[in-house]
Amino acid sequence: MFYIIGLGLSDEKDVTVRGLEAIKSCARVYLEAYTSILMVQKDRLEAFYGKEIILADRDTVETQSDEILRDADKEDVCLLVVGDPFGATTHTDIVLRARARKIPTRVIHNASIMNAVGASGLQLYNFGQTVSLVFFTETWKPDSFYDRIKENADLGLHTLVLLDIKVKEQSDENLARGRKIYEPPRYMSIPLAVRQLVEIETIRSAGILDPDKTLAIALSRVGGGDEHQRIVAGTLNELLNHPVEAYGEPLHSLVIVGRRLHHLEVEYAEDFAINRNTWRAVAQDVYGCSLD
Amino acid sequence: MFYIIGLGLSDEKDVTVRGLEAIKSCARVYLEAYTSILMVQKDRLEAFYGKEIILADRDTVETQSDEILRDADKEDVCLLVVGDPFGATTHTDIVLRARARKIPTRVIHNASIMNAVGASGLQLYNFGQTVSLVFFTETWKPDSFYDRIKENADLGLHTLVLLDIKVKEQSDENLARGRKIYEPPRYMSIPLAVRQLVEIETIRSAGILDPDKTLAIALSRVGGGDEHQRIVAGTLNELLNHPVEAYGEPLHSLVIVGRRLHHLEVEYAEDFAINRNTWRAVAQDVYGCSLD
Repeated sequence: MFYIIGLGLSDEKDVTVRGLEAIKSCARVYLEAYTSILMVQKDRLEAFYGKEIILADRDTVETQSDEILRDADKEDVCLLVVGDPFGATTHTDIVLRARARKIPTRVIHNASIMNAVGASGLQLYNFGQTVSLVFFTETWKPDSFYDRIKENADLGLHTLVLLDIKVKEQSDENLARGRKIYEPPRYMSIPLAVRQLVEIETIRSAGILDPDKTLAIALSRVGGGDEHQRIVAGTLNELLNHPVEAYGEPLHSLVIVGRRLHHLEVEYAEDFAINRNTWRAVAQDVYGCSLD
Repeated sequence: MFYIIGLGLSDEKDVTVRGLEAIKSCARVYLEAYTSILMVQKDRLEAFYGKEIILADRDTVETQSDEILRDADKEDVCLLVVGDPFGATTHTDIVLRARARKIPTRVIHNASIMNAVGASGLQLYNFGQTVSLVFFTETWKPDSFYDRIKENADLGLHTLVLLDIKVKEQSDENLARGRKIYEPPRYMSIPLAVRQLVEIETIRSAGILDPDKTLAIALSRVGGGDEHQRIVAGTLNELLNHPVEAYGEPLHSLVIVGRRLHHLEVEYAEDFAINRNTWRAVAQDVYGCSLD
């Protein structure tokens, strides 16, 4: 059997009981590499599972799936991924390859940011399509996310924005010299994300991302308990000027709040507000929520 | 500490390790009542946890939250819910009450249909807002879901449709006589859901739910393994005429496929098709997907 097992959002204990049993049954355990950077160290997972773990970066999963799937028709093999196997990034490709080789496959689901974003107090029913925001460079500022946010905003819907990660990047020099030396991983911070959003708003000017009139909620390590989870709510400007440490450890996600905002959503998320007065005032005056 | 713990989608082993540890630490364990009907029996959960479980129907959770939260500032108490605590239905109310009483609260997330729907092969990025479909009666056919599906369809997005459940219903006679005798729970089947959708299409005529030209995917018990999980893909007409047993056990969900359909989504979901030829033909001719 080939298992793809979601590890959830925070640490080694977020795996399900079924997932843990499957891992323990496996002859080989692969871990999608940035997982360990994101959450817990490989050796901590190994100790918890009582198993050796083979790191596999995204490239390996895509290009060396034959090796991962080797003998999976005769013994159990698993691939561990952060969140859910069909969360923000999908693993359909390796499942299709397993199918083609008639290897039985089982997916073990878990929480992903796509549903755990509900922890913000915003109703999942009120979300439109999810978008990704990549690191801008001087010359490359892809802005198709703006059209998607606008489509959602026009319907009054919230938008979950997933922020970029860069892993296994090489410096220009190392790349030129063919040295496989990688830069430390980079995660987009909330202030940077807001800056990029506002930059595109300035260019496109549809008026959907107003620094003082658009509410947003930042999330990291959802479900990780008070020591890890951070949820911060405010206007775009407040989020921009809030100290970067206050957002906790990566990965970060951001929700752009839509106009169909309900007063219960406002009330719940108020607990996460940088400034409760601004939060309520904008919800009332700009979004038209009736609050007590 | 007051815990709200997601149980995931299938059976007792879908709880996370962290969730199981929390349950074992609790002085009282409440289970939202229809949970046990949906997935596994209460006694099976009790055996697995080594704990007595107190059933709490949705009303109890809403109206008797004081009893549930009793002493939760001094000892651990938990409420178990199917899927994720902030999944399709939310438990924000009891969290707000806990907060007001300064009871520390922790949510333990899990998979819900809102993210596990990715098992269909459709990309979560391509989903718009989620809708609910309730049982129609002769005189009550609420159709606001149609506007939401149309909003999604106009953007080319998929729509997840959650199908109604009726639990603790009384017959007219029992209601009139004040007898607390309840009818067996009812779950909307896929064929009934499709019939209702097409009925409203006939009235509203926006052309978004064509029996032979709209593709859809039915899901139940996602992640439950081959013995439980069912995913069935086809045109609305095919789903309507497919034997009801083929959809497996409740809860059922249905995805209306949007025009932004990608050929990899078609290819992945083809494995679930009632008729592969129709599936591919409609994807190609109506949705404009280029397939090999």
